[in-house]
Amino acid sequence: MGRRGVFVTLEGVDGCGKTTQVARLAQALAATGREVVRLREPGGTPISEKVRALLLDPSNEEMADECELLLYEASRAQLVRQLIEPALTRGAVVLCDRYADSTYAYQAAGRGLDDALVRGANALGSCGCVPDRTLVLDLDVSRAYERATAGSVDRLEAEGLAFQERVQAGYRHLAATEPGRVHLVDATGTVDEVFDRLWNDLSDLWADAPAAPFCSVGGR
Amino acid sequence: MGRRGVFVTLEGVDGCGKTTQVARLAQALAATGREVVRLREPGGTPISEKVRALLLDPSNEEMADECELLLYEASRAQLVRQLIEPALTRGAVVLCDRYADSTYAYQAAGRGLDDALVRGANALGSCGCVPDRTLVLDLDVSRAYERATAGSVDRLEAEGLAFQERVQAGYRHLAATEPGRVHLVDATGTVDEVFDRLWNDLSDLWADAPAAPFCSVGGR
Repeated sequence: MGRRGVFVTLEGVDGCGKTTQVARLAQALAATGREVVRLREPGGTPISEKVRALLLDPSNEEMADECELLLYEASRAQLVRQLIEPALTRGAVVLCDRYADSTYAYQAAGRGLDDALVRGANALGSCGCVPDRTLVLDLDVSRAYERATAGSVDRLEAEGLAFQERVQAGYRHLAATEPGRVHLVDATGTVDEVFDRLWNDLSDLWADAPAAPFCSVGGR
Repeated sequence: MGRRGVFVTLEGVDGCGKTTQVARLAQALAATGREVVRLREPGGTPISEKVRALLLDPSNEEMADECELLLYEASRAQLVRQLIEPALTRGAVVLCDRYADSTYAYQAAGRGLDDALVRGANALGSCGCVPDRTLVLDLDVSRAYERATAGSVDRLEAEGLAFQERVQAGYRHLAATEPGRVHLVDATGTVDEVFDRLWNDLSDLWADAPAAPFCSVGGR
């Protein structure tokens, strides 16, 4: 597909601070003259956002695990085909708040769905589009959980602390098995401190990725 | 899963008369004292119906093929886990208007998605629940297409006649490769004539399926 851009995903349990850091990274990258496309999963396209609404609606509590898994993959496939692949072909930096590793951590580690089943579904949903780097914001799960449930509680957050702990263990397993792509980053400290750690971790990726001749912060 | 019931699916191109025949079959089966659960795909549960609305909405025309495929599978997984498996465990006859073979015919044969990809997705979406018999209503595609597009034209029907012809070829391929399960049934003639052909084709299935002690027409 003639990929020239850089694909970075941020991961972590609910309330770990991903969304804030994705915004900071997008801003800092745009300031270097690169085209930055900032996305979130599930969502990011009109169709994917409609699927997101189904997934997060607490009234859908009878949702079967396999249905949930496949809805995440459907949302992802649309995002890959409609936005991620074209952006990477243009040479942009794509920053995505959650991606296929979330599905592994939440559905396989969290809900106990079969590992091979989830990996097969991820292969379908990501259409073969794998991140260059995945940063997992790693912190004390009980603190992240408190932060995530301070406001309204959506269907996922209603699963409880034990669930978030299994998710966290799933992320650590991924970092252990794919150390080249998946890096754990300490998410304690101030927003600036965490940002510096993320920025430093990514520095090797820009070495051979030339800045695009234009500069815009795309996406949502 | 302790399956004691019988699982029958009806298939065919848009406008082939499936829906009418599923209703007739449900009525005739209920009259024999069996519990009958009548369903349609995509749909059949509140969550599946929400996914169906996404799939059939003409405003979602930018939907990627892989997204469409995975939405069908998500809807199916919910239907299997929430209604089909429990009904089969109870000993009911489940009649489904479209199932995984539709996905093969429309997505692989119709849209040209990779065969193995679609089969893998079908395995995920059907959660291993395979019909005992699949009846394909087989008729001149141009006549079925006229019937289907007489009213409003939804996103699928807007694909045109050539697409429906590829779908039809996909069904015939399935009947040729899985002759034990998938039967082509001539769909020309009156509703009564077609019903008689379907009823006769299914007769061997009831031989070792005892009638349930209660009788209701469930589902929608």
